[in-house]
Amino acid sequence: MTAQMKLGAFLWATGHHIAAWRHPKAHVTAGIDIGHYIQLARTAEAAKFDMIFCEDAAGLREANVGIASQTSRSIGFEPISLLSALAVQTGRIGLVSTASTSYNEPYGLARTFLSLDHLSGGRAGWNLVTSASPIEAANFGSTGLKPHADRYERAREFAEVVTGLWHGKASGHDGQSFSVRDPLDLPRSPQGAPVMVQAGASDVGRDLAARTADVVFTAAQTFEEAKAFYDDLKGRMAAYGREPDDIKIMPGVSPVVAETEAEAREKHEELQVLIPDDVGVALLSSYLSISDLWRYPIDGPLPELPESEGMKSRQALVVEQSRRDGLSIRQLARHFAGARGHWRIVGTAAQVADELQARFEGGAADGFNVMPSYFPGELDAFATLVVPELQRRGLFRRDYEGRTLRDHLGLKRPV
Amino acid sequence: MTAQMKLGAFLWATGHHIAAWRHPKAHVTAGIDIGHYIQLARTAEAAKFDMIFCEDAAGLREANVGIASQTSRSIGFEPISLLSALAVQTGRIGLVSTASTSYNEPYGLARTFLSLDHLSGGRAGWNLVTSASPIEAANFGSTGLKPHADRYERAREFAEVVTGLWHGKASGHDGQSFSVRDPLDLPRSPQGAPVMVQAGASDVGRDLAARTADVVFTAAQTFEEAKAFYDDLKGRMAAYGREPDDIKIMPGVSPVVAETEAEAREKHEELQVLIPDDVGVALLSSYLSISDLWRYPIDGPLPELPESEGMKSRQALVVEQSRRDGLSIRQLARHFAGARGHWRIVGTAAQVADELQARFEGGAADGFNVMPSYFPGELDAFATLVVPELQRRGLFRRDYEGRTLRDHLGLKRPV
Repeated sequence: MTAQMKLGAFLWATGHHIAAWRHPKAHVTAGIDIGHYIQLARTAEAAKFDMIFCEDAAGLREANVGIASQTSRSIGFEPISLLSALAVQTGRIGLVSTASTSYNEPYGLARTFLSLDHLSGGRAGWNLVTSASPIEAANFGSTGLKPHADRYERAREFAEVVTGLWHGKASGHDGQSFSVRDPLDLPRSPQGAPVMVQAGASDVGRDLAARTADVVFTAAQTFEEAKAFYDDLKGRMAAYGREPDDIKIMPGVSPVVAETEAEAREKHEELQVLIPDDVGVALLSSYLSISDLWRYPIDGPLPELPESEGMKSRQALVVEQSRRDGLSIRQLARHFAGARGHWRIVGTAAQVADELQARFEGGAADGFNVMPSYFPGELDAFATLVVPELQRRGLFRRDYEGRTLRDHLGLKRPV
Repeated sequence: MTAQMKLGAFLWATGHHIAAWRHPKAHVTAGIDIGHYIQLARTAEAAKFDMIFCEDAAGLREANVGIASQTSRSIGFEPISLLSALAVQTGRIGLVSTASTSYNEPYGLARTFLSLDHLSGGRAGWNLVTSASPIEAANFGSTGLKPHADRYERAREFAEVVTGLWHGKASGHDGQSFSVRDPLDLPRSPQGAPVMVQAGASDVGRDLAARTADVVFTAAQTFEEAKAFYDDLKGRMAAYGREPDDIKIMPGVSPVVAETEAEAREKHEELQVLIPDDVGVALLSSYLSISDLWRYPIDGPLPELPESEGMKSRQALVVEQSRRDGLSIRQLARHFAGARGHWRIVGTAAQVADELQARFEGGAADGFNVMPSYFPGELDAFATLVVPELQRRGLFRRDYEGRTLRDHLGLKRPV
């Protein structure tokens, strides 16, 4: 059998496109409509996706409340409660939620995810983030964002405690940031342990992933970027005694697909024209962790940037693209605002499948985290057009073979 | 219409009786069987209970791992994930979970409960606890349990922040223990705000409840104890500008009910004889927050106790009963181990209804939190025998009239 691509369905309220809420078919209160999410989860499960993926940020998500209220990104379920509800409305699909190592305690987090894992019969995963946003910090008593290196040092110890608890470690942990005495009050996971997902792409983020991740979610615009990241991360694993296949690298992709290419382009343009310049620039500013981008001429180039303590890798990606393509602030803003820095493919099912296949077979990805521009429309389009095409090519399963998320992903069961 | 009694169904794995797991009909892995909980929730909803109630403790629940493994109390879902799953398997019943003010942050907790509230269409409640167990403290990096007064000071500020966030407070909080800048990333609750439940019964616990609680869960053996607590708590409310009816006081009750009294007594004895003495004494020790009770003759009286930083009110209740009834350590242990310090009624539906009615109409309770000795047996018995008897007497609803937990409880909607 040909190697099988892994697919995640990254759910996010109205949709991943920044202007999704302005789409004529938008469901503006989707973020708090459990019926909407149940429908999306069932669509993804019927299409045999490996997993549903949810992001999380405990605060107002965009750069400020004004922007948030302009994007309707500001409302949505807390993801653990959401995925627990979806666990009993689905039977096979994996359920992955983001949670922060900066604003949780490892005993509580390990317990909650293991509980979700038992609830779902072994389908849970945790996407570890260190929370790069100063907005969240301000809601957790912090006077500012902690330095990148400190966040990752805490994350490394946090992950060690959590996996120790999941693996049934009997003795206590007494470390730099945490001390935990007891084992968890739950038996071992039906899949051995919940799946560990990570998305940090900085040097220290990659090392943490190489050491502990089962799945890595990442952003890459070009094949070369994706391939370089893939080779670098897989290359780091041997130092931790791991095989390259022990991590599945799944870059984000935001496909806009239709029966014809012209129709797909039209669907895409329909959303692009709905992005207000000030929202685009504000969102770009937040990715760059700078506050005064609006001071620069919108049709001029990106200014030189100060060193950031935010998302280092995201910042580098934006700067790289701005130089490569000679884009103005307005063009960059519109480009990044749409798919939020992720790879976008606009075309027919065959064209989208070609692109995915090229990265998959070219050794730049083990699968993809699919980020539909708006829900349910683009998820439906991917499920009904692209998935059958991938199945025809022998690149994606026609049915689930196992019962757990580890089974779907082809990951070893921890001993 | 006669005043209506409020009823909670306190769910707990195999059952509330300490020896429930040894019962011949016990479902020993009930704590991680979501099908079991769905069945219990539907039974309670069909019987028109106001709410399901879940306790929580982030650690091994009994005095030590040895005891825990002897009681099968050591395993169970984390309650937020559990109730989120139950939210989409039920339609009307309230969903109340315990969560600690000592091991959470107010922004995260407020957000999670409001998310559950939206998931369930306005049926969520939070049972605030300060976590009196040193076992939990040891899993959250603490070198010991914080003093009672400090825990309650943190809890008071925690509750203030959480209710502020639920009530849509726009400006930030900057206090002693917490600083929180943003509003929540969720709109107002379908019921105005989740219901606030409390169970602290010490002086400072009562004041916190009088100030902020919508529901109070409590333990009282006798009518006099229940009445004294009820009058005291309602009497404290005026100082905070509240009406007595703004809090529903719901003591715990563990009924053992059957068609005949003899049959009920037999069912009860069947469980009582299954309590091993060492487990009973260890559990009694943990209620009394002392470690060396086993040194004293088991058939002798309770020794003088040192001042405790644990559950002050529970300790006083045990000491009071030991003196009143002249009970030995063995007798006390067996008495308290069975219903864990709560009121027990053994008899026919009419006898149980008589007792509940007397406390309800005597001004000692607004309703009861029902703690079945084992599941599903005793919940089924209460639902099929006692509930219809209460309905015949006009003391309990025959159907839900509203849609939210506040509707069921007859609580004002916060403005």
